[in-house]
Amino acid sequence: MLRFGAFMSVPGCHPTGWRHPDAICETDISFRWLAHMVRVAERGKLDAMFFQDSAAVVGSNVAYNAEPFNVRNGRQAHIEPVSAIAGLAAITSHIGLISTCTTTYNEPYNLARRFLTIDHISGGRAGWNLVTSQAEDEAGNFGQPAHLEHGARYDRASEFYDVVRGLWDSWEDDAFLRDKASGIWFDIDKMHILNHEGPHFRVRGPLNVSRSPQGRPVVAQAGSSGVGMDLAARSADMVFTAQRTIPDAQAFRSQMHALMAKYGRAPDEVRIFPGIMPIVGRSAAEAQDKYEQLRDLVDDNTGLRGVARLAGGVDILSLDPDGPLPELKPSNAARARQEMIIAMGRSGMTIRQIGRVLGMSQAHRVLYGTPQSMADDMEEWLDAGACDGFNLLFAHYPKPLEEFVDLVVPELQRRGIFRTEYEGNTLRGNLGVPIPRNSFARVPEHA
Amino acid sequence: MLRFGAFMSVPGCHPTGWRHPDAICETDISFRWLAHMVRVAERGKLDAMFFQDSAAVVGSNVAYNAEPFNVRNGRQAHIEPVSAIAGLAAITSHIGLISTCTTTYNEPYNLARRFLTIDHISGGRAGWNLVTSQAEDEAGNFGQPAHLEHGARYDRASEFYDVVRGLWDSWEDDAFLRDKASGIWFDIDKMHILNHEGPHFRVRGPLNVSRSPQGRPVVAQAGSSGVGMDLAARSADMVFTAQRTIPDAQAFRSQMHALMAKYGRAPDEVRIFPGIMPIVGRSAAEAQDKYEQLRDLVDDNTGLRGVARLAGGVDILSLDPDGPLPELKPSNAARARQEMIIAMGRSGMTIRQIGRVLGMSQAHRVLYGTPQSMADDMEEWLDAGACDGFNLLFAHYPKPLEEFVDLVVPELQRRGIFRTEYEGNTLRGNLGVPIPRNSFARVPEHA
Repeated sequence: MLRFGAFMSVPGCHPTGWRHPDAICETDISFRWLAHMVRVAERGKLDAMFFQDSAAVVGSNVAYNAEPFNVRNGRQAHIEPVSAIAGLAAITSHIGLISTCTTTYNEPYNLARRFLTIDHISGGRAGWNLVTSQAEDEAGNFGQPAHLEHGARYDRASEFYDVVRGLWDSWEDDAFLRDKASGIWFDIDKMHILNHEGPHFRVRGPLNVSRSPQGRPVVAQAGSSGVGMDLAARSADMVFTAQRTIPDAQAFRSQMHALMAKYGRAPDEVRIFPGIMPIVGRSAAEAQDKYEQLRDLVDDNTGLRGVARLAGGVDILSLDPDGPLPELKPSNAARARQEMIIAMGRSGMTIRQIGRVLGMSQAHRVLYGTPQSMADDMEEWLDAGACDGFNLLFAHYPKPLEEFVDLVVPELQRRGIFRTEYEGNTLRGNLGVPIPRNSFARVPEHA
Repeated sequence: MLRFGAFMSVPGCHPTGWRHPDAICETDISFRWLAHMVRVAERGKLDAMFFQDSAAVVGSNVAYNAEPFNVRNGRQAHIEPVSAIAGLAAITSHIGLISTCTTTYNEPYNLARRFLTIDHISGGRAGWNLVTSQAEDEAGNFGQPAHLEHGARYDRASEFYDVVRGLWDSWEDDAFLRDKASGIWFDIDKMHILNHEGPHFRVRGPLNVSRSPQGRPVVAQAGSSGVGMDLAARSADMVFTAQRTIPDAQAFRSQMHALMAKYGRAPDEVRIFPGIMPIVGRSAAEAQDKYEQLRDLVDDNTGLRGVARLAGGVDILSLDPDGPLPELKPSNAARARQEMIIAMGRSGMTIRQIGRVLGMSQAHRVLYGTPQSMADDMEEWLDAGACDGFNLLFAHYPKPLEEFVDLVVPELQRRGIFRTEYEGNTLRGNLGVPIPRNSFARVPEHA
């Protein structure tokens, strides 16, 4: 069975997609529109809404950007997504709610509290997308003269995860007695103090939030570099990735499963979701028109800057955009993303062409067609073992999400490859990943 | 006119009040119950729900506690309140939603984002209760061997506030054009980069959240020490305080207004709310019975520990609880609170008696009586210029809140000293404090 995340990067995953006549621009900051969209996604039985994040106005740091700020890019100011999913949890009942939150500029105790709390607010539907900060602009907002080096960020992220996971198990499921007769509130033998001491963190615990209906929040991971994949193999219940072909996705999925075995984890303990940007038409011609309309909305200013940000020191904006991509030095930003554009360059695409692909869909695969042809494509990926589902990147909001739910979901349901009702009330239940037992408990509570 | 905050310290402001037969114990972690209560409070036209917080299980740090943990105290694990108000914002329309969040263990960029986002989710009803961490237990959860000294905490808090307030003004109200025709998303002249450089923080900005319908979140402050009052005079729209008599409250309020003048602020730019624990009966005898029932629920284990925590090194638990309070050295925890117990000791109360007062109501005034006698008391405070309203501490939840709304509010409305409808849709509008203009804007937007 397929599974889906609705990837939220308001006001659109296409940075200038907000110019589309159907786009509602206020999705960046209007909770009313987010509430509308989560109801649409829940009506469509999607597994989760999945929010992107960065802790900066992208392009704010002149030290890292040839020309600071892009007044055409819609993704400048937006709702802080961890707060957004807390709000959305209050008005939904079944859909998962996942937010990105960086390990680079947070304290693990604070982050563990927030996500476990949202797991309570939602009745067990919260997820944390564990990332290291990619946007070099963020450093300046947190007192850092420059961005941490890629390896150091992952060292910190890995230890951060250990602390968060340990804190989430501070209390066994039956630790709180609340016994009015005896006056005993909790069983002290079922409280666990972490006493973590590591190179990046010293955290005593216990966390002041009890375990949740799904044990602990789902952990998502999107890193595709070597260290990123290793951390995902150890920690993730869900992996968001960016392969554009079935063989690449099969290879990634096999590699992830093999890495998981190293940590004693079975393949079905993780769900792997490549990203796609769906553009659905009632006919093939309509889909083609819609695709071209969106592609034509990519401005070079946005597209070329996207290439420049991954260029690792090469001044892309001074080169001929219709020429080839030059040799690039390894970037300290998103390493796996850089490897993808190097591959595009080797396939003969010009800088401008690469920029348009990056600019339109954040380098994810664009899938346009009729509901039938899109279902054929997704079924082929599923049957080939290339994925467990897809994260859906919408060019703008809310119409492409509405069209996916109203046109594509019914076709997948007819084929029996997508649910017609949610399997359960928790995100783990719907994803089909296990509810973990408390790692400190002497007796497993979830047998 | 009176104004009210419903102070939330789940499962009760009385730490063993959860044993009361009417108490619902799951208010600590159940969003369903919080949702019920916010609806009751909004039906009662209260100004705000106001959440307490600490970032630790209180009593977890053996270095500061004669005996670690108290299995009778209900306030161990609870919903993280900033996430809670984001959820509550989604299901309410008029009531203010204020959460405590510490300046001691957060980054100002992260905190500024969260609260301004919740101001958007709620349509301008968010508030931040700016505190320095009092609970010495928190230090160990954030890599600190010991708690920061009182003065240093306030230095950090004061600079933290400057950064947050500066970030909240990153964008002028009309900065976002969203002009599909020209493709211009924002007016770069209406974006302001903070470039803060201070002893505790270097924060570049801009914040990636736009201004809110009330300009920026309400700032509440509860510090009553000298430095605490000075920070409140400079920063607060609302002050939560703990005087127990009209003369003390008048003196505090005058002093606050005088301090505000130093910063060019008018008295009506702040609302001062002493705390009270209301216990309402349909007759004086019923109220007396309810008071005694709650007082008898205070266990000495909780009450004496409360005294011990404020004792600044004196081992209170080894003394005769029915003897006098000894001389105390200044505490590095809550300084103003310590002065209050010293005053109680001088008035002749024993350690046990002081402990029971602390244990029942967190040292706030307990007001019990009929709706008429309680209204008389509050009207007297209002007429004497001792307060602008009260923060209501409920011994347990939800019944004391329901009784206040159903029995006391109508009596105050009959007397014309409490609203019958909300004045506006924002917290600033209902509190009657000004919507601030953007401090960077050349032209005031809110004339």
